[in-house]
Amino acid sequence: MNPKLPYVLLAGAAVIIFILSCMLLSRGRRSPSCESQPSTVEKTRSVSQSLVFADLTPEEMAQVVRYLQGNLGVQLVDASRAKPSDNCIASVDLQVPAKAEVLRFLDGGGARPAREALAVLYFGNQPEPNVTEYVVGPLPTPAYHRDVTVQKYGGKVPYHRRPVTGKEYMDINTLIRRELKKAPQFLTTCCESDGTDLAILTTAPRGFKSGDRTTWLVLFHNVAGTGYYLSPVGLEVLVEHRDLHASRWQLRKVFYNGRYFASTEDLEQEFLAGTLEVVRLKKPQADAVLGSMRPRYPPDSLGPLQFEPQGPRYSVRGNRVTYQGWSITFGMNPNSGPRLFDIRYRRERIVYELSLQEALALYGSNCPGGMSTRYLDGSFGIGRFAYELVRGVDCPYTATYVDRHYLAESDTPKTNQNSLCIFEHDSALPLRRHFSDSQSFYYGGLRKNTLVIRTISTLVNYDYIWDFMFHGSGAMEVRVHATGYISTSFLHGQGTNYGNRVGPHTLGTMHFHHMHYKVDLDVDGQLNFLETQDMEYEIIKDPWSTQNTIERPYLRRKRLEREDEAAFPLNAPLPRYLSFASPNPNKWGHPRSYRIQIISFAGKHLPINSSMERSVSWGRYQLAVTQRKEEEPTSTSIYNQNDPWTPTIAFADFINNETITNKDLVAWISVGFLHVPHAEDVPNTVAVGNSVGFFLRPYNYFNEDPSVDSPGSVYFSSEQDTRACGANPLACLPSTAACAPHLPPFHFGGFLNVSLAPPFGGV
Amino acid sequence: MNPKLPYVLLAGAAVIIFILSCMLLSRGRRSPSCESQPSTVEKTRSVSQSLVFADLTPEEMAQVVRYLQGNLGVQLVDASRAKPSDNCIASVDLQVPAKAEVLRFLDGGGARPAREALAVLYFGNQPEPNVTEYVVGPLPTPAYHRDVTVQKYGGKVPYHRRPVTGKEYMDINTLIRRELKKAPQFLTTCCESDGTDLAILTTAPRGFKSGDRTTWLVLFHNVAGTGYYLSPVGLEVLVEHRDLHASRWQLRKVFYNGRYFASTEDLEQEFLAGTLEVVRLKKPQADAVLGSMRPRYPPDSLGPLQFEPQGPRYSVRGNRVTYQGWSITFGMNPNSGPRLFDIRYRRERIVYELSLQEALALYGSNCPGGMSTRYLDGSFGIGRFAYELVRGVDCPYTATYVDRHYLAESDTPKTNQNSLCIFEHDSALPLRRHFSDSQSFYYGGLRKNTLVIRTISTLVNYDYIWDFMFHGSGAMEVRVHATGYISTSFLHGQGTNYGNRVGPHTLGTMHFHHMHYKVDLDVDGQLNFLETQDMEYEIIKDPWSTQNTIERPYLRRKRLEREDEAAFPLNAPLPRYLSFASPNPNKWGHPRSYRIQIISFAGKHLPINSSMERSVSWGRYQLAVTQRKEEEPTSTSIYNQNDPWTPTIAFADFINNETITNKDLVAWISVGFLHVPHAEDVPNTVAVGNSVGFFLRPYNYFNEDPSVDSPGSVYFSSEQDTRACGANPLACLPSTAACAPHLPPFHFGGFLNVSLAPPFGGV
Repeated sequence: MNPKLPYVLLAGAAVIIFILSCMLLSRGRRSPSCESQPSTVEKTRSVSQSLVFADLTPEEMAQVVRYLQGNLGVQLVDASRAKPSDNCIASVDLQVPAKAEVLRFLDGGGARPAREALAVLYFGNQPEPNVTEYVVGPLPTPAYHRDVTVQKYGGKVPYHRRPVTGKEYMDINTLIRRELKKAPQFLTTCCESDGTDLAILTTAPRGFKSGDRTTWLVLFHNVAGTGYYLSPVGLEVLVEHRDLHASRWQLRKVFYNGRYFASTEDLEQEFLAGTLEVVRLKKPQADAVLGSMRPRYPPDSLGPLQFEPQGPRYSVRGNRVTYQGWSITFGMNPNSGPRLFDIRYRRERIVYELSLQEALALYGSNCPGGMSTRYLDGSFGIGRFAYELVRGVDCPYTATYVDRHYLAESDTPKTNQNSLCIFEHDSALPLRRHFSDSQSFYYGGLRKNTLVIRTISTLVNYDYIWDFMFHGSGAMEVRVHATGYISTSFLHGQGTNYGNRVGPHTLGTMHFHHMHYKVDLDVDGQLNFLETQDMEYEIIKDPWSTQNTIERPYLRRKRLEREDEAAFPLNAPLPRYLSFASPNPNKWGHPRSYRIQIISFAGKHLPINSSMERSVSWGRYQLAVTQRKEEEPTSTSIYNQNDPWTPTIAFADFINNETITNKDLVAWISVGFLHVPHAEDVPNTVAVGNSVGFFLRPYNYFNEDPSVDSPGSVYFSSEQDTRACGANPLACLPSTAACAPHLPPFHFGGFLNVSLAPPFGGV
Repeated sequence: MNPKLPYVLLAGAAVIIFILSCMLLSRGRRSPSCESQPSTVEKTRSVSQSLVFADLTPEEMAQVVRYLQGNLGVQLVDASRAKPSDNCIASVDLQVPAKAEVLRFLDGGGARPAREALAVLYFGNQPEPNVTEYVVGPLPTPAYHRDVTVQKYGGKVPYHRRPVTGKEYMDINTLIRRELKKAPQFLTTCCESDGTDLAILTTAPRGFKSGDRTTWLVLFHNVAGTGYYLSPVGLEVLVEHRDLHASRWQLRKVFYNGRYFASTEDLEQEFLAGTLEVVRLKKPQADAVLGSMRPRYPPDSLGPLQFEPQGPRYSVRGNRVTYQGWSITFGMNPNSGPRLFDIRYRRERIVYELSLQEALALYGSNCPGGMSTRYLDGSFGIGRFAYELVRGVDCPYTATYVDRHYLAESDTPKTNQNSLCIFEHDSALPLRRHFSDSQSFYYGGLRKNTLVIRTISTLVNYDYIWDFMFHGSGAMEVRVHATGYISTSFLHGQGTNYGNRVGPHTLGTMHFHHMHYKVDLDVDGQLNFLETQDMEYEIIKDPWSTQNTIERPYLRRKRLEREDEAAFPLNAPLPRYLSFASPNPNKWGHPRSYRIQIISFAGKHLPINSSMERSVSWGRYQLAVTQRKEEEPTSTSIYNQNDPWTPTIAFADFINNETITNKDLVAWISVGFLHVPHAEDVPNTVAVGNSVGFFLRPYNYFNEDPSVDSPGSVYFSSEQDTRACGANPLACLPSTAACAPHLPPFHFGGFLNVSLAPPFGGV
């Protein structure tokens, strides 16, 4: 062997090592994993300021429960077990401090407002059963509680107004199952059922006058893993459950296939006598069931995905998101749902509060349950039923997910993990662009990226997608999509006067969804006025010859002085421009303003002489602007659902022609759409076209479009080499974006957190 | 030295080589470049069928030009040089074959229709100058031409109706510059100008009665690389250019800062006499100019980007796109812009033609140019001015870009490279989803991915983004965003009655954009009827006790019988549901239908007694449904702009109360918005909120939502292990999407293709 061979081999090995190292490094450069940039530190206020709006922590909730248990001097039963004749804690939520106090703290260097909770108690075990609301504070170690019921509502809240608890639904279901046992032959024939396997769905309201608590419940075939809502069997029952003792509740009426009966015995009698027209339904089998969402085909290739080559550009700290000049504080009310506070752009507050108030779904049908249904979802819990979001479908895979906590119908806090998502979205549009083909050749543009804050509420059958969006132009966008299962009735008689047939025996019942938002704008200060602008034509002679006629558009500006002028009926045209204005002008002399632009396809509001109209009187107006008052924090109440005939809060009362010039103002906005379900709503209503909302757009608020300051602006002229990364950031993309996204492993724990107590009926 | 050392080193080297190789291989596996999957071959008709709608190729255009040059028996001058007193070819475009012929070919196995071109000629050099339209065929080797002018328009097209050519604008500009020389002192003082450096912008229409060709032109300070539209100097001139000989054209009037003068000499006289109020404007300097789009800050970190881990899922072959059951044939009319044909979903044709017809921009101002402006963009060229799209801003970086060709005002075909883009977009929303929290726990959902076909037209100052979108639910969406520069007037007097001040001397002039679309729906066959559905309330006694009152919504269905009933005025409410229906029912007995849903914020249409109203009478209606007629192919004409007083096509004439039951029907849809420019329109109007359009949604067309067949459906129940890639496709993402996107190098050649002849004025 040549003694030099080892050295030759060694030299060869060195060369190979060098080459491999280079390949590894260059390969590393060609497609490394995407790395987060250290996120640009935005100069913002300390996070601790936004905590003034923070939802209660589980620890705080537990402290409040302990305090109430020890200091009310009455026996409290856990709400999940409490009978109507017991006392229980219905809910504990943040008591949002008064605006004046908060502003003194945020803006005036004042003291931090005391942190307090609002506790709602159902007192069934009292001489005069009632609902009482306490403010409990200070947190974290409560030392006082204050009964605020009379102050808030002008009187006691009668016990019959309380929402129905899971326990109450279970007791109703027990009653129904007991009664169904009395019609065994009928049930076998109509439904291949013994009555224990049918799903039961509540409706609301529950009667016709204050004090009533008589509910129509609708029965469905139930197949595990799919929506029973599409399989009504034609049977509905009316249960009176007003008495505080469930043993005294009664089944008042039975409906089957177009006819009414006094009891299930009567139904069985008629059936046995052969005088009943029975529609024999097979028990639906697994995947053959109407509305199954199980995939029919194996997964195919992946569609387009978003990724963040340099990591997220927004940051979430505690309850505050910052993004490109925006700062938003977020939270969730267990009843009314998402709420944002202190929305600032470039350090200036634009919105003090932006919060969902209510969602109304009002149905037509020729079945009693359907025709009775006017769900006020806030009473069921829009925030509480915002469950875990599915990464990659509900929000982009790489979104940031945060947990929400609530305490409702239990003495123990619950968590909806990952139930709010935050992400930046590439909307695949230019925010602005211009290509110049005259005088000089150049191109300027900017991508439209949007920060989205989203949560999705499942209210039994349907799912609302609540979006709050923040644009690089200083505009905000609020949007809701409806999806999920439709509600249905058993198809009989002239059913299609109330919708479309969507299955063998299923009528998709017409309804509308109306949503109400509170928007407490503070445009360049708290004191604003409301200005409308619209176009008119004037007929003039041309000024240069006065021989000819010109129809010329001009601008009609109007300052609205009073609340009554600023209450715009639901289906009437709005002035084309409508803005919240500051007395301060921008550089060009125009009042600094934000414009409200509404996109809605609302149905017809309930006739004003309806006995329950005042409970949803916010629905009269697509927009109403009122003086902001600490005593008018919400447009509705959770007690309106079960006593809509004496509404605990009637929004119409807020509008009493007070002046709205240079006052702290609130815009109350209704959006919604009429939904006539059709075959394509099976299995689920699709989001396409079923979206409504509004924009808040700067209107002479700035001196120019703030997006000119965006570092993402693209500009090049015909003189530049657009292929050079230095001259044109787009030319850098092939290298800077050539990395593989980091995707965390998929995880979904949402089923673990679902309450065992059925929220709206259920088995 | 130990003789074993080389061997030890060699062994060490081998180990290092092994480790490096492993790293290289594993690194390669961890973040490979994304690979295209072989695209799923959709079973579709041969591409050659869609070629029946294909835009002309440059070769075909050249053939037609050669044929015309050789066969008309008159001398033709190239339009880019032609004087009004010459003959020239104005344009050559596809003559779309008659629908009956096309359907015989596509559906009935009939012969392929002859391929023909439509050539528009300006005959200035004839005893009776006129515009003549010829059908030339058959392509590729023309052998005949047929004068179709009288057949199409019921008579000859007078010469004065022809659009203004680039050459004519140049001659107008020469005249203006000559006249400006007569006011040197004035120009120096007002504008630091000698008159040669001002930009000149045309307005239209040009007079007050048929035959007029007298145009107000507005003068601006011009800074290379930015939009001069924001810098009016206060000077406007009225030029009569009706005569076929430019030497006889005249400057008729001069406007400056609120006053009118007979000539520039008069203006100079008044100035010298000291009786003129002059606003002295500095010549704007580079970046200090109002509306610059040059970035002010260096680029920051990248925002979210879309990528396609497994390549595109759509395919583009020739003029046809296929995507997840959709098949769309696309093209571009040089005048009216984008046009789609034969839109099919799951092999069934739903739309025969979906085409933009016109875009109207109508202004108010207290300056003569502004108050005269009613641009009919189709006459300028919505398709022709759809320039190259900028990858990464105008469309996603990874979109597919295709070229368009046209022949206009020249004997040589021109190309707009990459001027149409096609991409699939992740809209970061679920198309549908439901989370089940009652009876059984499961989740079902599907991402909302959308195929987008986009083109962007630059019409001098503003840019329209034209989108056509195709959803997984069988719905189509048509949308237009307006961006680019606003038009402005010099601010004087009561200018703010017509807009907002947006700069030191700049009035952003109020205007509206109204767009008109033709939608030739063929829903389950050619013969359809129109059905409306809306909600009403009926007051009934509750059927179970008849003691109480219920306000119950019901559905009012109506079949519209006649065109007059189906013509819905612009700002009046539409029935909430409005569908094109087939006589054939779906599985549940309802007519198979597509619903039209419009999103629009339209301004006020021109008063009906305006002398030019008939030329834009399509604007009276937000929706009008007419019998489809081969003789009513478009709702407007390029000749309407310069003779709106005797419109060559008046849409109102299409509505003559013919029956629309079981006929081939067309929906004509207007969308638009009032735009009162504000400070934030500088530099450019932003897309946020400035978007209008419409949906075409299946309504009982299918028996269930077709998206249930999507292989992208996600479903899991509480029993499944959602982390297993086999059970849940989302769990596969971290591995299947862990690749680095292929991004081609950036390239933009758009400036090279810009015509040197200024399209609308210019220098």
